[in-house]
This record gives sequence, structure tokens and C-alpha cells, in this order.
Amino acid sequence: MSSPTLAILAPGLLGGSVAQAAHARGAAGRIVVWARRPEVRLALAHQPWCSAVTESAEAAVAGADLVVVAAPVDRIIPLVQQVAPHLGAGAIVTDVGSVKGEIARQGHAALGDGAHFVGSHPMAGSEKTGWEHGSAELFQHRTCFVTPLPESNPAAVAKVVAFWRDLGGEPVTVPPDQHDEIVAHISHLPQIVASSLCAMLAGKTPAWRNYAGGGLRDTTRIAGSDPQLWRTILEQNREEVLRALRDYQDELHGLQIALANRDYHEVVARLERGRAYRSQFRPAP
Amino acid sequence: MSSPTLAILAPGLLGGSVAQAAHARGAAGRIVVWARRPEVRLALAHQPWCSAVTESAEAAVAGADLVVVAAPVDRIIPLVQQVAPHLGAGAIVTDVGSVKGEIARQGHAALGDGAHFVGSHPMAGSEKTGWEHGSAELFQHRTCFVTPLPESNPAAVAKVVAFWRDLGGEPVTVPPDQHDEIVAHISHLPQIVASSLCAMLAGKTPAWRNYAGGGLRDTTRIAGSDPQLWRTILEQNREEVLRALRDYQDELHGLQIALANRDYHEVVARLERGRAYRSQFRPAP
Repeated sequence: MSSPTLAILAPGLLGGSVAQAAHARGAAGRIVVWARRPEVRLALAHQPWCSAVTESAEAAVAGADLVVVAAPVDRIIPLVQQVAPHLGAGAIVTDVGSVKGEIARQGHAALGDGAHFVGSHPMAGSEKTGWEHGSAELFQHRTCFVTPLPESNPAAVAKVVAFWRDLGGEPVTVPPDQHDEIVAHISHLPQIVASSLCAMLAGKTPAWRNYAGGGLRDTTRIAGSDPQLWRTILEQNREEVLRALRDYQDELHGLQIALANRDYHEVVARLERGRAYRSQFRPAP
Repeated sequence: MSSPTLAILAPGLLGGSVAQAAHARGAAGRIVVWARRPEVRLALAHQPWCSAVTESAEAAVAGADLVVVAAPVDRIIPLVQQVAPHLGAGAIVTDVGSVKGEIARQGHAALGDGAHFVGSHPMAGSEKTGWEHGSAELFQHRTCFVTPLPESNPAAVAKVVAFWRDLGGEPVTVPPDQHDEIVAHISHLPQIVASSLCAMLAGKTPAWRNYAGGGLRDTTRIAGSDPQLWRTILEQNREEVLRALRDYQDELHGLQIALANRDYHEVVARLERGRAYRSQFRPAP
């Protein structure tokens, strides 16, 4: 796959960034794109990183070595099933969905023996959506999860890992269910934390938000994310998210009790645990 | 007070920034600084924004038109009481503490008829501490609360308001108890939210933090703040913080129940309320 043909289905922020990064870094020979809406296809046809735009998803995957399904979480498996009969022998299909357990299993089941599904999830993004906000640098120094099943084709897994590395990402291979546990904690729970803080403050005097310093601004940035996208993510990762949320509620409750009891030794111990954890984040990319 | 003499007691990040901003913007004729530790006094004496460094707080306030007590919340009133007998007639004392109710009342009570206490709280800062991290631009476009009591001298209040405006800040005058309710929501609760998220994650696999995207990073930035500083803030604003925390816990509980019941209409409604609130933040300074 030295100069592979890359097909990108339903590009949003991530799919558009995959195309731009692959173009900028020479990770693909041809980049063929399909989008559902005609006006999006028209706009994509004018992008320098787009070799061809097709009228159908089936046409886009014909002749593709690697297919990236960039649709929202609930649209990934229907698209994989739709294009499956049109994939060439040895074609590899991956995705960029935020939840992996069901997608990895159903994606694998949807393809015959000739093609391979290997799930992916790049930890890159923004509260913005849409391919027009994409960037060739989006994956630079970002973790890109690759989530094979025990029955996945090892060569296909290696090619997907190499692809994300070619785009500047840092591939991490984990089983899909472990992935879902991890992102419930480091991505889905923070979204709930930020959105709920804003939802609660929405019930107070609105002018207060204008007084806030950088702390509230940063803590709540991701509350600006698209609720419909997050609905499908929370739906697909419901059990892991509920588990992480309960642990977080327990932590808050512990601090509340300590503060109510004026147990400032315990209050400080909890703040210290948080600071120690935060201080060991690797430097920002 | 066209070229007033400014005294700054116990400068940290905020006090150092007050001095630098006052120097850069010509808001003070002389800037006299006192710090408790001799090595800090030595370093301060070499700063271009420092007209003089004194050995005692009492010496610093002698001849000052405006005194800014920049000590941590639990050290403000002891310092005001200590320097009170040494203030000139008509001198104004303010502070930069994050909690205002008790400080406003006790500060007013500590001064005789000749001098005036008017509490302040600039909503500027950082997870960093120390005067060496200060900046002349720190208050630019930042809310600076001024919290008079009904019995405060109106001319003194007007001068403190004008001082923060001179430093580039945006003064907002509110009663001290209302200030404490506001910051419990927009500053103290976000600190608890971020610290507790990190404290909970500290109990999970540490390597997970290296996988996180920008969302977790931003949501938890302020968890890096100094726990001892926050202990005194939470202690002084305990009741308001507990009230805000309970409302936040109710919000989280509502989302948890909706997710547990697969009531995705309710899940989306809560995420939407959060997004709508967040989308109306004024642009970052």
C-alpha cells in the first residue's frame, strides 16, 4: 500500500482532516470522497486534497485500498453494510467513531472474507464540526486508538496503525471494550461534567457568565459541542459512561461531606490528589 | 489622587500584576512594596515597577494614598489590622481576595474614621502563583469586582473603581454577599468540578491521561491550582459553595437518571441547555 487509494465516506471535521493530512503528507495516491448532500459534494470537488467526488458511497469504495467511514457513530455500521459488496479484495475499512465495542464487532461481521474491518478512533477534534473546520495538522501528536478483535487480520491492523502514524498521530492498539472504558473516563465523562456545569449555571443569573475568568471558560469549552453527536456517543457507551459518572459523583460527594463537616484536611487531600494527577499530563501538542 | 502613591502588601501573582499594570499605565506616582520574606524583598527591589521596598508593612503604608493588600484570603484582615494605625488621613485600603463578605465587614471595622476599606476581587489569575508570573496585562478586559458596604465612603468606592479601570479592568460593583454567591458558581464550583474529575481519574490507570485530547486538558486545567490557597477560599465561602455544589450534583443526577432510563430526549435537552449557555460567553479577552 505504498501509494494507496483512499476513500473517505461522509467527511466531517475528522474525515476532512484525514483527507487533508493524507494529501499533505503523501499518505495516499488518490483521495476519493463521498458525501450525502449534493452541495457538500460540490464544495468538496473544489478542494485541492480531493482527487474525485462520487455520487454514491458504493462508487467511492470501488478500487479503494483503504476506506475511512467518517460518519457519526450511529451511521457507521449502516454505511459499512451498504458498501460491503462493492469493496475490492483485500480492502481495509476503518472508521473514526468515538465508541468501538459494537462497531468493531458489527463492522467485522459486515465484511466477507475478502475485506477487513479494523476500528479506529483518533483523539482529536473540536467543539466545532464540519469538514470545513478540518486541518492537515489535526492528528499531530494525538493518540489514535486502533481497536482490533482477536479475529482481526493482523496485516490489516498493521496497515491501519501505519496509516495513523503517517498522518502524524500516535497509534495505540487496545481491544474495543477497553477503549470504551478508557474514553468513558477521559472523554465522555468530561463532556458530561462540562455540559452539566453549564446547564446548571443556565438556571442562574445569565449576566454572571460575563464576569467569569479563564477558569470557567476553559472548564466549559467542550460544552459547546453538538448535543446530537453526543447523544449517539452516550447511547452507544451508556454502561461505561454510567459507571464513570457514578465514580465521579462519589468523588464530589466525598468533597461535599468533607466541606460540610469542615474537614479541611480531607478537602486539601482531595484537591492535592487532583493536582498531582493534573501535573503529570504530558505537555500540550 | 492624580499621581497617587500606591502600596502593595504581600504581592503574589495578582499583587505583582497590580504593580506592573499601575507602572505601565501611569496609574501611580510611586509604588512601594512590602513582602514578608527577605529574599522576595531583595528580588522585588530590582524590578523596574518598584519605587521602593520596605522592611515592614507599616512602613509601606505610611504616605500611601491607596494600599492593595494582596495576601491570601486568610491573611488579609490580620494585615489590615496591623497597618491600620499607620495609615494616613483619607487613605484607601483594598484587597484582591476571592471571598468578600467577611473581609468587607472586618476590613471596614478595622479602620478608624480617617481611612477607608473597600474590598476588591479581580477575576484574573492563573493556576500559577507568585509575583514573578505577574503581567501588566493581567487585568485587561477582566471583571474586577468592587464590593462596598452600604456604609462605605462613596468617594473611596469611586476611587477604587477608577483604579481598576486604570489598570485595564472592567469594574463591577456588587454587595459583598452577592459577590460571594456569584463566585461560588463561576469560580469556586468550577475549581471543585475540575479537581474532583482529576482526583477520581487518579484512581484509574495513570497512562489513560496520555491518551486524552484537548477536552480533558482544558476541562481540568485549573485542577493544577494550589490546594492551600483553595482551602482558605472554600473555608471562607463554605455555605455558598455547598449550595452551588448541591445544585450541580442535582444536575448531574438528572442526567444520570435520564441516561440510565434511556431517556435520550431528556439527555439531549440537558446538553442543549449547556450548549446554549456556553455559546453566549463573551469572546475571550
